[in-house]
Amino acid sequence: MTEPVRRRGRPPRAQQDAGPGMRERILDVAREEFAERGYDKASVRGIAKAAGVDPALVHHYFGTKEQVFAASIEMVLAPALEAPAALVDGPLDGAGERMTRFFFGVWDAPATRAPLLAIVRSALNNEVAAGVFRGLVASQLLARIAQRLDLPEGEAELRASLAAAQLVGTAMLRYVIKVEPLASADLEWVIARIAPVVQVHLTGP
Amino acid sequence: MTEPVRRRGRPPRAQQDAGPGMRERILDVAREEFAERGYDKASVRGIAKAAGVDPALVHHYFGTKEQVFAASIEMVLAPALEAPAALVDGPLDGAGERMTRFFFGVWDAPATRAPLLAIVRSALNNEVAAGVFRGLVASQLLARIAQRLDLPEGEAELRASLAAAQLVGTAMLRYVIKVEPLASADLEWVIARIAPVVQVHLTGP
Repeated sequence: MTEPVRRRGRPPRAQQDAGPGMRERILDVAREEFAERGYDKASVRGIAKAAGVDPALVHHYFGTKEQVFAASIEMVLAPALEAPAALVDGPLDGAGERMTRFFFGVWDAPATRAPLLAIVRSALNNEVAAGVFRGLVASQLLARIAQRLDLPEGEAELRASLAAAQLVGTAMLRYVIKVEPLASADLEWVIARIAPVVQVHLTGP
Repeated sequence: MTEPVRRRGRPPRAQQDAGPGMRERILDVAREEFAERGYDKASVRGIAKAAGVDPALVHHYFGTKEQVFAASIEMVLAPALEAPAALVDGPLDGAGERMTRFFFGVWDAPATRAPLLAIVRSALNNEVAAGVFRGLVASQLLARIAQRLDLPEGEAELRASLAAAQLVGTAMLRYVIKVEPLASADLEWVIARIAPVVQVHLTGP
């Protein structure tokens, strides 16, 4: 038994030795595949091919296509998923501005905007992708923010989502649809108008 | 010369006699084709086939695929494009609530939500479609609202677009991504929280 049997879920030995960076490398490639082809047309086989590995290795690390997608979203959203505590920690009356600055910091940088946009597009075009996105955004991002608000449970989550809606809608019009004059407007002007609204959603009457 | 020469831009005689409802019928079919296939995959040939007419007739009425798309968006948005004057006419201090009610009236009804959603998806996925959408939204909807605001020209349009961003973002999270508890929240509760924000964007300090 020197030759391992190759089967789904167990990568060939040569690839098992590929080192600790392999998981991240596959996710990078997966993110690009989902961005280029969309969720429907991307495949585990195509991701494996682009990464130069056996599809079994992708299955081994992540499971199904849905799970590869979830992992690649988690990687892109990682900074945001770690941020809520820091954003809402500290004085609550500055939380609106901190959330707004953090959000536009991510969207205004082309390097982080492209993968985010790919996720949003996938989530708008495919029910499975929407479900994955919804789970992460609702249960991780919004729920963590809501926990810090001094409000009844249901209301806190609703208000956090209306604050998110102002941010998401502004990003759609400014960065995706590129409606003028908003697309070229000074970012500080936009933040100055949006932050108080986010604050009202979070802590207003 | 009893047989007309069939060429691009001139429909065959039998179809020219199809009556005044033909233009609307083609647009209905086009809307469904764009919704089902997306902008990239929809074609004038496919639209003509689904409508049971010659592609030349579609070209005759509308021109290129981009122009068919623009016409089908205009048909879907017609109520909204006619509404701004009525929405912003009357006392400005009720404009936030009138806009919010009108917007959610359209999105909350499944019959009008489906075609709107198809347009939004196309605009998020294709640059040409985004351009058509941007032109209609920016030059017709937002500019007409901005005209009624008692503000410097550039600022009025920016504020109208931030008000639109709150509405659009809420629709994305509630009706498209379906984030809970927002997706199941009572519509009147949502309107009561959103309308004052829209009002602040339009007429606040």
